[in-house]
Amino acid sequence: MIGLGLIGLGTVGVGTVKIIEKNKSQILKRVGAELSFIKFCDKFIKSRPEIGLSAKEIVSDYKKLLNDPSIDIIVELIGGYEPARTIILESLKAGKHVVTANKAVLAKYWDEIFLTAQKYKKLVYFEAAVGGGIPIVQGLNEGLAANQIKKIIGILNGTTNFILTKMTEKNIPFEEALKQAQKSGFAESNPAFDIEGIDTAHKLAILSSIAFGGWIKISDIFCEGITGLNLMDIQLAQKEFGYGLKLLGIAKENKGKIEVRVHPTFLPHNHPFLPVNDEYNAILIVGDAVSDVMFYGKGAGQMAAASAVVSDIIFLSRQVAEGTAGRLAYVTYDQKKKVHLLPQEQSNSKYYLRFMTEDKPGVLSKITGILGQYGVSISSVYQPQTAEQNGELKKEVVPILLTTHLAEEGKVQKAVQEINRLAAIKSKTVLIRIEE
Amino acid sequence: MIGLGLIGLGTVGVGTVKIIEKNKSQILKRVGAELSFIKFCDKFIKSRPEIGLSAKEIVSDYKKLLNDPSIDIIVELIGGYEPARTIILESLKAGKHVVTANKAVLAKYWDEIFLTAQKYKKLVYFEAAVGGGIPIVQGLNEGLAANQIKKIIGILNGTTNFILTKMTEKNIPFEEALKQAQKSGFAESNPAFDIEGIDTAHKLAILSSIAFGGWIKISDIFCEGITGLNLMDIQLAQKEFGYGLKLLGIAKENKGKIEVRVHPTFLPHNHPFLPVNDEYNAILIVGDAVSDVMFYGKGAGQMAAASAVVSDIIFLSRQVAEGTAGRLAYVTYDQKKKVHLLPQEQSNSKYYLRFMTEDKPGVLSKITGILGQYGVSISSVYQPQTAEQNGELKKEVVPILLTTHLAEEGKVQKAVQEINRLAAIKSKTVLIRIEE
Repeated sequence: MIGLGLIGLGTVGVGTVKIIEKNKSQILKRVGAELSFIKFCDKFIKSRPEIGLSAKEIVSDYKKLLNDPSIDIIVELIGGYEPARTIILESLKAGKHVVTANKAVLAKYWDEIFLTAQKYKKLVYFEAAVGGGIPIVQGLNEGLAANQIKKIIGILNGTTNFILTKMTEKNIPFEEALKQAQKSGFAESNPAFDIEGIDTAHKLAILSSIAFGGWIKISDIFCEGITGLNLMDIQLAQKEFGYGLKLLGIAKENKGKIEVRVHPTFLPHNHPFLPVNDEYNAILIVGDAVSDVMFYGKGAGQMAAASAVVSDIIFLSRQVAEGTAGRLAYVTYDQKKKVHLLPQEQSNSKYYLRFMTEDKPGVLSKITGILGQYGVSISSVYQPQTAEQNGELKKEVVPILLTTHLAEEGKVQKAVQEINRLAAIKSKTVLIRIEE
Repeated sequence: MIGLGLIGLGTVGVGTVKIIEKNKSQILKRVGAELSFIKFCDKFIKSRPEIGLSAKEIVSDYKKLLNDPSIDIIVELIGGYEPARTIILESLKAGKHVVTANKAVLAKYWDEIFLTAQKYKKLVYFEAAVGGGIPIVQGLNEGLAANQIKKIIGILNGTTNFILTKMTEKNIPFEEALKQAQKSGFAESNPAFDIEGIDTAHKLAILSSIAFGGWIKISDIFCEGITGLNLMDIQLAQKEFGYGLKLLGIAKENKGKIEVRVHPTFLPHNHPFLPVNDEYNAILIVGDAVSDVMFYGKGAGQMAAASAVVSDIIFLSRQVAEGTAGRLAYVTYDQKKKVHLLPQEQSNSKYYLRFMTEDKPGVLSKITGILGQYGVSISSVYQPQTAEQNGELKKEVVPILLTTHLAEEGKVQKAVQEINRLAAIKSKTVLIRIEE
C-alpha cells in the first residue's frame, strides 16, 4: 500500500481525491499496489462533503503529514511561493516524494528544489504545473527523450488566450474582453500574473529548464504581457496579412545559445496554433529527430489538472511499490550546466510595426530610410484605407503598417526609437513580433 | 551496460543507431547505464556506411541474437506479420525484452504477444507503431492513466491524409492524387494497405486495445477506405457546409459499448483536425477527467519513427538497469476482459448523402419521405447550382445533398437502399459520415 498525504483541499485537491476514488481498480492495476490517503491538510478546517470528508479528518499543521511514517508521497496543491516552498523542501528532507501542481514555486526555486530532491534521493513530479491535463511534462521529458530539443513554443495561459480570442472574435477592446473573462471565471479579480505574462513565463521556465538541462530563471525571460494591446492591430493584421494574435512563450536555439521570451505574437493564418481558442493551451516542440510535435488541450479546470496530478501519483507510486523511486532523478538537472542565453537585443524575429503618422507625402520614405540604416529589411508595407473611418484616429493622422523580414531585435528597437523622434510620428510606434 | 540486438537495418533501424550515437551522453543520464548494440541482424548482408557498419558485423540468423546472453533488448524493425511475430515471441521466451515499430503484427497478434510477455515477465514497447514520433502510446497509457477513456479519434495514416490534402487543395481526382503521393514517396507502389484503411485499422486496434483494456481485433473494426472517393463530394461539402474530409479511426463509448470504425469523415470547418494536412497525423483523446487532449506531429519518416524507438529503448533500459523491468506489464491486458462492441448498424453518426436524381419535381419529397419512415431526421438539404456545369453530370441528372441529424447507421443504410431503388435515382447514393 502506498500512503498519500494531501496538502491543499481546493478544487484540484478535491478533484484528485474524486478521480482516485472513481478509478480505483484501474489504478490498482497500473500501480501494482493500493493508494490510500492517510492524512489531509488545509488551513480551512471544514468538511468537504463532495468527497465524504469531515472537518475532524483535516489537520492544519502540515508537519503532522511529514512525521507520519506511513505517508510515502506528499501531494502539494496549495499554490504560491510560500509556504509551498518550505513544505516541498521539508517533505523531501523528511524522506517523502512530492507531487505538485505549483508552477510558481518550481520556476522560482527550481535549483533549490531539485538539488534537495537529488540530495535526499526523492522524486518531484509536476505534470499539472504546465498545460493542465495535457501530458506535456512527461511527453517532453520521456516521450521525446531521444531528442535534443531545438524549440518550444506554447500558448501556456488560458486567461490571456480567452481574452485574445474574445477581442478577435467579437471585435471588443482589451478592457472589455478582460471583464468578460472575469465574469466567465477565466480571469481572477487581480489578473496581473496572467495578463502581464508572468504565469506564461513560469511555465516556459519549467519547460525550458527540462529541455535544456539547466535552470532557466524567470528573470532570464524577456516578458511582455497583453495589457494595453490595441484592438486596431488585431483587426488590421488579420485583414491585411491574415495574422492571428496569441500570447506565446518561446524558447529556441539561436547561434548556439537559447532565446527565451514571452510576448504577444502574430501567427500566419495556417499556423496550427490559430484554431487554439479560449481556455485551450497548445505546446509545439521541435526535436532534432522528431521534427515538430504538438500537444493541445484544456489548460485549466478542476478535473483536467487533477487528471495530471493523479497520473503523477500513479507513476511515482509504481516506483515506490517497486522500491526504485529516487534511484534516478525524474528531470535531469545539473547545477553546473550553464545554459547560455541570448540577450533579447540579439534575438531574431520578424516584426509588425504600426506607425501613426501625419497624412503627408515623404513620411514613408523617412521611415524606411531609418530602418534601412539599421539593416532592417522590409517585407511589406500597407496604408490601410479604413484608417479615417476608425473613431480612434484623428483625420490627419493615418496608420502605416509595415512587416519586416527576420531582423535582430536590438536594431529594430533602435530604428523604432529614432523613428518615434520624427516630427511626423504622432504616437508611439506599436511593435509586435511575428512567428512563422 | 544494457545490451541491444537490432533486427532490421532499414531506414528506421539506421535512424535508431544514428540517434543513439548522436545523443549518447544525454541518453546515459536518462538511463543510468550505457547502451550498446551487441549484434545486428538483417536479411541483406551488406555494409551500412552511414552508421559505420561493415557487412561482417551483420548476421542473417536472428537466433544468434536470442542466444546471446549479453543482449537484454531485441529491437524488431522488420515490419509485416512474419517472421516478425515469431521473432517477438521467441525473443520473449528467450528472456529478452522487445521494442518494435510493427503495428501490423501487434494488431493481429495482440493477445498472443502480450500473454507471452506476461508469462515470461518481459516487456514489449511500441511507441513507433502509432503516430510516428508523436508520443501517443505513452501519453495514452501513462500520461492519461488517471482517466477512463471515452473516445479516441485519429488521423493515423500519412498516405491517405496526403492524398485527401491534395484532392482538396488542388481539386484533383483520387487517382491523380494517389499518383502524386507515389511520386513524392508518400505512397507505396501497392498502396492497398493504406488507401483501404487497413493501416489505420491496425493503429486504431492498438490504441483502443490499450484504452479499453481488452483485445480489439482488426476484424472487429468496421473499415471503409478512400478508394473511389469522388472529388465532387469534397468540393460540394466544402462549399455548402464548410466541411473538410479526413480518413479517421474512431473508437468511442456508446450505450455502454464501444464503437470502432475507420472511414472517410466530414469535419466542420473549426475542427482541430482540419489544419492537419499532408503526412501529418493527429490523435484526439477524450478522458472522463481530462476532457479532450490532442497530439499532432509527423506520422512517418525515418527520424520521427526512430525517435519513438529510441524513447522506448531508453525507458525500457532504465528499468533493466534498475532490475525492475517486467515486474509490471507496460500495457494492462486482461485476456478475460471482453470489450463489448457495438455493431456498426447500431452506431450513431450524422450523415452526408448525395443523391443523383432526375431533375424533376417530387423527387426530393420521395427521398425525404423514405428517410422519415426510417426515423432519420434531416438537418439540411441543398440542390447545388453548380450541378449542370460539372462535366461528370448529364444535364438531366442533378445532385441533391442532404445532411442528417444523429441517426442509427442501420436505419440510414436501409433508407438509402430503398431510395436507390427509386426510378428517379440515377446512380448509387454516396454516404459519408460526419463527426463533430
